[in-house]
Amino acid sequence: VDLNAREAAISRQGNLTKPPGALGRLEDIAIQLAALQGRETPGVDRAWISVFAADHGVAAAGVSAFPQEVTAQMIANMATGGAAISVLAKRIGAEIELIDLGTVAPVAPHPMIRDAAIAPATANLAEGPAMSPVQLEQALGEGAAAVERARASGAELYIAGEMGIGNTTAATALAAGLLGRPAAELVGPGTGLDHAGLTRKRALIDAALARHAEQLSDPAAALACLGGFEIAAMAGAYIACAQQGLPALVDGFISSAAALAACRLCPGAADWMLLAHASAEPGHQAIVAALGKQPLLDLGMRLGEGSGAAAAFPLLRLACQLHAEMATFAEAGVAEKAREA
Amino acid sequence: VDLNAREAAISRQGNLTKPPGALGRLEDIAIQLAALQGRETPGVDRAWISVFAADHGVAAAGVSAFPQEVTAQMIANMATGGAAISVLAKRIGAEIELIDLGTVAPVAPHPMIRDAAIAPATANLAEGPAMSPVQLEQALGEGAAAVERARASGAELYIAGEMGIGNTTAATALAAGLLGRPAAELVGPGTGLDHAGLTRKRALIDAALARHAEQLSDPAAALACLGGFEIAAMAGAYIACAQQGLPALVDGFISSAAALAACRLCPGAADWMLLAHASAEPGHQAIVAALGKQPLLDLGMRLGEGSGAAAAFPLLRLACQLHAEMATFAEAGVAEKAREA
Repeated sequence: VDLNAREAAISRQGNLTKPPGALGRLEDIAIQLAALQGRETPGVDRAWISVFAADHGVAAAGVSAFPQEVTAQMIANMATGGAAISVLAKRIGAEIELIDLGTVAPVAPHPMIRDAAIAPATANLAEGPAMSPVQLEQALGEGAAAVERARASGAELYIAGEMGIGNTTAATALAAGLLGRPAAELVGPGTGLDHAGLTRKRALIDAALARHAEQLSDPAAALACLGGFEIAAMAGAYIACAQQGLPALVDGFISSAAALAACRLCPGAADWMLLAHASAEPGHQAIVAALGKQPLLDLGMRLGEGSGAAAAFPLLRLACQLHAEMATFAEAGVAEKAREA
Repeated sequence: VDLNAREAAISRQGNLTKPPGALGRLEDIAIQLAALQGRETPGVDRAWISVFAADHGVAAAGVSAFPQEVTAQMIANMATGGAAISVLAKRIGAEIELIDLGTVAPVAPHPMIRDAAIAPATANLAEGPAMSPVQLEQALGEGAAAVERARASGAELYIAGEMGIGNTTAATALAAGLLGRPAAELVGPGTGLDHAGLTRKRALIDAALARHAEQLSDPAAALACLGGFEIAAMAGAYIACAQQGLPALVDGFISSAAALAACRLCPGAADWMLLAHASAEPGHQAIVAALGKQPLLDLGMRLGEGSGAAAAFPLLRLACQLHAEMATFAEAGVAEKAREA
């Protein structure tokens, strides 16, 4: 983080032809990106989206409104352009790649899909650790490798998305474990659980928290016990963003749980994160508070895939363009604010 | 408003490959625009921005942090591309026109600037009506004419912006008058008034409300007594949007006061409005509540010019693109939500 670039950006904002602060958070974004990119006028013309997909052993316990084969079906739908993130990536001009970390149903090969299967699914986190330490390393490494590809392509902003039936259960368990909260404070309906399903999901998460209680003070162990392959990969990606110097726009609930794990594994990672939106999933607020950041949008979205981040992306791009392209008072010959009103 | 198109859009949203409601307000936007545009898949590829500028007699009373010549200077800055709205219009691909309704300082002719001067400024609303009935008709007519130009150009969405030193005083007085509230409940710092200035502004607005009290039950009279040429033109534009069938994306504080006047003059006008953002100007919340609508963004912006609407515009465009381009469950071969979870 470059404090000289930050100061230069703050000074530039003060000279642009508008009352000081009148662009609100669009000014803050430009200043934050200036500090991260190390230049007075930052830019995020090119965004990179990695969608990490994986299945979850816990889905067998009936914690999702959708059947498990939907994970693989949605990977195919993303590849052929029919998913929300496909439309958004195309329309915001972002590169998108799909990373298959392991699905129960087969995924047909496609040039957009990277086959990085670790196992057909995680183990059921209610019955044991979701993954082994070796599998955790593999998943973290896939996230880091995705960030390397993004940087190599010249991306100026990184977005991680996810797909995985059952993954609000894993993300809720992980966040509850890291935050030391009971399931009741974080659990929500995910893709649309009914009341009975929600009760089952809460009890299952509390049981998993009790089973893994001794592991939860170690963030890597918590991630292995309660996470998913795609959640661990996102955590690895956020850590790599900080290590490789690429700002990350964090999507919604699942992404924020991964971001929280990343911050526990690598405390400096938070500096490189911007939060795209406030998810409708009730537990998101607690994770956002723990990350100490304010989301940009609050549109009641709860889809995942990176969709909230992609929707927020135009605001970041406009913030940078305003910062770079507006005239200063001197350039425009506009009178500045009088010292006395 | 086309209820068949609305039903078709609701049905389409339910078939797209996502959990029902998972795109939150992006779904609502697509459905609302479908109803307004009368087609199942609406589109807002082309936006039109009219920036109405005018000076205010009340500025002589020291109610702004900026000197009055800034109105004319900012029109020139908008024409040459240096203002926030210039950068935003270019970057979102919107057409922009500037309408000079009367400024104290001279404005040099420019192809982007329409000379429609009514008077060098309104009269001081604290001492008498800001404008005559004839001047009000002229201003309303300029707004309607701008919407006609937008429609003729093929625009699918209309944005009104404004520039006028002193215009938060006029807008606050107008909103307070229409809502029957004292100045203290709505007044704010505008471009950056200090404490003494804010006290002066509040007292002046209360005095104006007392002076014009008998006129305030008639919205046209209230607009003439307390408004500004640009505020009246915006009200005329919003009414014309409803009459001519063009959705309007309402900007911030000044725009919302004009929108409130439009709704009082023509109650059906509200149907054609979407609110772009929650302004940092404290009185905005009361106006938003009276309009009965929820702003899309809340970024602490308080610039005007149409800047908040232009910043929100990409969300509307993405909402329409998602609605039109996502695959349905049947198209993508994705399993729908199970009936029992």
